[in-house]
Amino acid sequence: MRPSGRTFDQLRAIALEPGFSKHAEGSCLAKFGDTHVLCTASVEDRVPPFLRNTGKGWVTAEYGMLPRSTHSRTDREAAKGKQSGRTHEIQRLIGRSLRAVTDLVAMGEMQIKIDCDVLQADGGTRTASITGAWVALHLAFQKLVAEGKLAAVPLIDHVAAISCGIFEGTAVLDLDYPEDSNAQADANFVLTGSGGIVEVQGTAEERPFTRAQFAELMELAEKGVTELVAHQKRAVGL
Amino acid sequence: MRPSGRTFDQLRAIALEPGFSKHAEGSCLAKFGDTHVLCTASVEDRVPPFLRNTGKGWVTAEYGMLPRSTHSRTDREAAKGKQSGRTHEIQRLIGRSLRAVTDLVAMGEMQIKIDCDVLQADGGTRTASITGAWVALHLAFQKLVAEGKLAAVPLIDHVAAISCGIFEGTAVLDLDYPEDSNAQADANFVLTGSGGIVEVQGTAEERPFTRAQFAELMELAEKGVTELVAHQKRAVGL
Amino acid sequence: MRPSGRTFDQLRAIALEPGFSKHAEGSCLAKFGDTHVLCTASVEDRVPPFLRNTGKGWVTAEYGMLPRSTHSRTDREAAKGKQSGRTHEIQRLIGRSLRAVTDLVAMGEMQIKIDCDVLQADGGTRTASITGAWVALHLAFQKLVAEGKLAAVPLIDHVAAISCGIFEGTAVLDLDYPEDSNAQADANFVLTGSGGIVEVQGTAEERPFTRAQFAELMELAEKGVTELVAHQKRAVGL
Amino acid sequence: MRPSGRTFDQLRAIALEPGFSKHAEGSCLAKFGDTHVLCTASVEDRVPPFLRNTGKGWVTAEYGMLPRSTHSRTDREAAKGKQSGRTHEIQRLIGRSLRAVTDLVAMGEMQIKIDCDVLQADGGTRTASITGAWVALHLAFQKLVAEGKLAAVPLIDHVAAISCGIFEGTAVLDLDYPEDSNAQADANFVLTGSGGIVEVQGTAEERPFTRAQFAELMELAEKGVTELVAHQKRAVGL
Amino acid sequence: MRPSGRTFDQLRAIALEPGFSKHAEGSCLAKFGDTHVLCTASVEDRVPPFLRNTGKGWVTAEYGMLPRSTHSRTDREAAKGKQSGRTHEIQRLIGRSLRAVTDLVAMGEMQIKIDCDVLQADGGTRTASITGAWVALHLAFQKLVAEGKLAAVPLIDHVAAISCGIFEGTAVLDLDYPEDSNAQADANFVLTGSGGIVEVQGTAEERPFTRAQFAELMELAEKGVTELVAHQKRAVGL
Amino acid sequence: MRPSGRTFDQLRAIALEPGFSKHAEGSCLAKFGDTHVLCTASVEDRVPPFLRNTGKGWVTAEYGMLPRSTHSRTDREAAKGKQSGRTHEIQRLIGRSLRAVTDLVAMGEMQIKIDCDVLQADGGTRTASITGAWVALHLAFQKLVAEGKLAAVPLIDHVAAISCGIFEGTAVLDLDYPEDSNAQADANFVLTGSGGIVEVQGTAEERPFTRAQFAELMELAEKGVTELVAHQKRAVGL
Repeated sequence: MRPSGRTFDQLRAIALEPGFSKHAEGSCLAKFGDTHVLCTASVEDRVPPFLRNTGKGWVTAEYGMLPRSTHSRTDREAAKGKQSGRTHEIQRLIGRSLRAVTDLVAMGEMQIKIDCDVLQADGGTRTASITGAWVALHLAFQKLVAEGKLAAVPLIDHVAAISCGIFEGTAVLDLDYPEDSNAQADANFVLTGSGGIVEVQGTAEERPFTRAQFAELMELAEKGVTELVAHQKRAVGL
Repeated sequence: MRPSGRTFDQLRAIALEPGFSKHAEGSCLAKFGDTHVLCTASVEDRVPPFLRNTGKGWVTAEYGMLPRSTHSRTDREAAKGKQSGRTHEIQRLIGRSLRAVTDLVAMGEMQIKIDCDVLQADGGTRTASITGAWVALHLAFQKLVAEGKLAAVPLIDHVAAISCGIFEGTAVLDLDYPEDSNAQADANFVLTGSGGIVEVQGTAEERPFTRAQFAELMELAEKGVTELVAHQKRAVGL
Repeated sequence: MRPSGRTFDQLRAIALEPGFSKHAEGSCLAKFGDTHVLCTASVEDRVPPFLRNTGKGWVTAEYGMLPRSTHSRTDREAAKGKQSGRTHEIQRLIGRSLRAVTDLVAMGEMQIKIDCDVLQADGGTRTASITGAWVALHLAFQKLVAEGKLAAVPLIDHVAAISCGIFEGTAVLDLDYPEDSNAQADANFVLTGSGGIVEVQGTAEERPFTRAQFAELMELAEKGVTELVAHQKRAVGL
Repeated sequence: MRPSGRTFDQLRAIALEPGFSKHAEGSCLAKFGDTHVLCTASVEDRVPPFLRNTGKGWVTAEYGMLPRSTHSRTDREAAKGKQSGRTHEIQRLIGRSLRAVTDLVAMGEMQIKIDCDVLQADGGTRTASITGAWVALHLAFQKLVAEGKLAAVPLIDHVAAISCGIFEGTAVLDLDYPEDSNAQADANFVLTGSGGIVEVQGTAEERPFTRAQFAELMELAEKGVTELVAHQKRAVGL
Repeated sequence: MRPSGRTFDQLRAIALEPGFSKHAEGSCLAKFGDTHVLCTASVEDRVPPFLRNTGKGWVTAEYGMLPRSTHSRTDREAAKGKQSGRTHEIQRLIGRSLRAVTDLVAMGEMQIKIDCDVLQADGGTRTASITGAWVALHLAFQKLVAEGKLAAVPLIDHVAAISCGIFEGTAVLDLDYPEDSNAQADANFVLTGSGGIVEVQGTAEERPFTRAQFAELMELAEKGVTELVAHQKRAVGL
Repeated sequence: MRPSGRTFDQLRAIALEPGFSKHAEGSCLAKFGDTHVLCTASVEDRVPPFLRNTGKGWVTAEYGMLPRSTHSRTDREAAKGKQSGRTHEIQRLIGRSLRAVTDLVAMGEMQIKIDCDVLQADGGTRTASITGAWVALHLAFQKLVAEGKLAAVPLIDHVAAISCGIFEGTAVLDLDYPEDSNAQADANFVLTGSGGIVEVQGTAEERPFTRAQFAELMELAEKGVTELVAHQKRAVGL
């Protein structure tokens, strides 16, 4: 029995609210249960130096947590003067995940910066970030299409993410904080709409897991991502 | 005529939503029109070194803006590795304002950290921060009273803040971004519920202002703060 | 009775010594009693990026305290690797104050950097900084005029600053350290030669102050600045 | 055909040279072909704060690259004043991998710091780091056993790591730099001596990979780690 | 012929003005011609961790230049967020030089921090710093003796410093900026009152110098330090 | 008797192993007994800003110690976020030493960055760094000559370095760690192949040393450098 009463393969209540931000070209408030992440997409003319004059675009991401998004207050990274290793890890993951489904040539020489800021955390902030970021990115591209700056949305596929883990001996989908902090092993899967694997990060916490367990987690993830993709479609009006 | 159609002494639509955050001991989403600031109050056992073993408490504040809370994206302070002078200025102002109405002896040796994070900015983020922070602080104190850790809420008075300025030659209340960026002079007033002055910060932008103009702004501020205090009362159930 | 024996509306002994520095284009050692601030003005060809090719100039300021300018030694900011919030606040204030009386168009595309370094502190370092900085700036402009690089000194007016406060229930002018650290409230006023308000920063320390008290402080400030402006005139030979 | 002429399931020449450092309690120069990583283990009395007085130990890791370990020179992180996101990612991975096979209770309240410094890089520096770090850690524990400070080496199992990837459409083992920079997808596998999964990190570079491909990579990794474990046994004299 | 008209073995006009600072326990404004350094000595109760409970004291130094002490403005180290290599070099040199003549046991468990801040630079700032710092340190010790906190001034000897160099083929004493920036080689000598060598730092700029030249410079230095020691005696009233 | 059994004027076992690094244009593993420093030379097109369009080249150096190169582990500078004063001192010394024997005009507008990384420390790391760096630099220049990018190696002379000190009352050559940490005084000499002095840094540790002692140390250094130069010749094939 899961602490939340969910079945082993049940997602938390998912909401992807488009247009949360007045200023951003695209935005989405992604809610995975009590985990709430504000994702915004900002269009910029300048690409990073290594892409200048190549005609190619870039998508990158930054991630942060509000100090009191967590159970007890976490020190503000801006006040400490540096971002943690965990923050670096997550924002690089978000960026790679989105680039894997973006046609960087078709988008042309521009950059889109995704900001994923966790307003409230209850486990799974990186998976909510990726899932919501795709919506924000799509909306920003739609806006550019509407303005005649792009011919079509240069996204090849959906990308969404979910965590799975072994909790009290059972493989379960979409870990919340009480599960995550007691899981024996957990893995984050970033998958495309067509089921391809973009990123996999599995970590054994208490003891190593087996290849069979890992396959079980991946299967759960495929189910979860299929549902998340349906939410994404609704959010962007597809 | 003001860009928003408001009269010269009219506040924007104000909302002080208590309990926005699941984890914080006290929280408030403060909305001054399109300016939205999430204020949380976190109770901590440890006081700063200069107060150890004095029996006195402390209230301090931190301030931040989400990168895309602004019209065009602002660099993330955590990524740059330092907070701007403006951030330092504002968070010091919030802390001083709250301490001015807190009975630090009555609260006993504990610390409350206020975080004011701007989700969306449209002018007046520091005034919305102070006004919402008072609500978050009050709610945290109420919780401590409910838990029997404090005998009574150790707040001597309300404190709220509003900006006023000279826009197109006229003194107006509660500047929004289009006004703020074109004002000839503007001032932020932090006042108590009983009308006392806690902080005043006036800045001439285009040309110096006169003592008479300054008095006019202060009068507008008193009207505005009276209304804000009424909102605060409702938010904390007084 | 004030600790120093001064009357309520009496400035400390003021000295504005021009030409203290051999290298700077303009310089002034500003003494407000035992508060000594070395102000230098450095002319640079390059303007900040946002002004390039606009034909407009810029005036900016930096502020620092020598570690043992204070009663007990203060840590060196360069050694700590960052400037305090107080330093940021003060240097931004100095810069804004000077720009308010500078004709940035008339000065043309160049930048003047003001450095205000406190050699000895006894209260009122920011007001001595602003008052002395105007002298340093004027001298630097005079030098540019003498060299034929400017047609006239592009300063529209004087700017000078003074602090006032409520000390033992009475409004007094030009707080020194013993007064400042025991004042019930204090305010810094930055005024022009013609009496306009450029900046006002009032802070209640112990208890809020009233509108009447605030008006009283402003009146004292006007008297004080009138005297400071006379000192400035002598220092620059007007 | 692989650039190096290796078969698809062939490791590079592996050497794990124990005792490379005169001072460290344990050390190993790990060579995976032209990738050379110096791994040292340093025993310290103090554990991190969260473990004080728990009787439990800790193993942590730091990672660095010499500036000219790479094809073209990389800026020195100490000179830049911060470690990159990649460095953070890798050193966290090394630490987690080692802790997964360490009996932290049996080792008692002490800390072992692993330093993995890349002297020369040719792909796979993180996998060589983990594989060599286990040897350094084992040697440090052996020394503590020899000194009578521990009853037995508190390592539950081996841990070793290898990368696999899809290169020109084929799954291959132990990518070197020319393969790594052209792989369509690659994954790092951290496995125990008994075949359990400790960490998996898979990343699609050009296009998503399929579940079948991923299984193929995992199988290759199991073969590779089996060979690495044999090298580890020889290096520590088992 | 030297640019200043001095003879080859002539110091610049030297002035060591004691008591320049109102707050510091000891202070000295050291002038070597147009090079002016403010040296203060601050007594602190706490010693660095490695000396706690040893009964021994410590003397350390920090060094800084005001931004416009130099011919053209130098960036403020506090604003850049780090001290330059040159600053580190110089402040370590000052500290070592003073400790070489201090009886750290006799001074007991306390720390004296020396701050050397360059108000105006014209070559030889480090030698003026050391020479003035000895005066500030002596005065601070005298004050502690007068207050009954020390039985006697725990200084074993004088220490003073001077630079010498090869300028236009000739060995000269006490380089000023025009000489320093054109010298073929220069060396800084830190000597005691009794002629012992505490520190020597010689650097060939244009071409290596010979052993004979080096001996010639050392002889000049001995002459210069003898004169500086006489100035020190007068400054501290010996 | 020296701890190592060496005679007073005997170097440790010296080895200068060229070509240690696969990627660097020039490299050398310099061994002075148990002190091992990896020196690499990296050729870059870009010169520092102050040399652009002057036709002149530049040689600069960086220095670092692996955390466990030392007897007990030293914190990693990249993790602390800043380089120590000692590191700054040493890398500036290496750079100046090499530039003293390089014909910067003949090398043309390019930059060579020397990295000296201490793999194992046992005293004398800066002297091993300079001696090995010259070899790495020479090899890099040889490569540029072989590629036709330079007509001849633009090195005017050898440069090598050695430390000498007063150990138990006797002047000895090439201090190792046990000597260095107990020396009464020590000095580092950087000399050219033809015997010229490039840099001298002498420091009295316990008590000042005399001019006669200093001359004795210099004589020892000349002997030592003569031998080091012979090693350099063999390493670069002269």
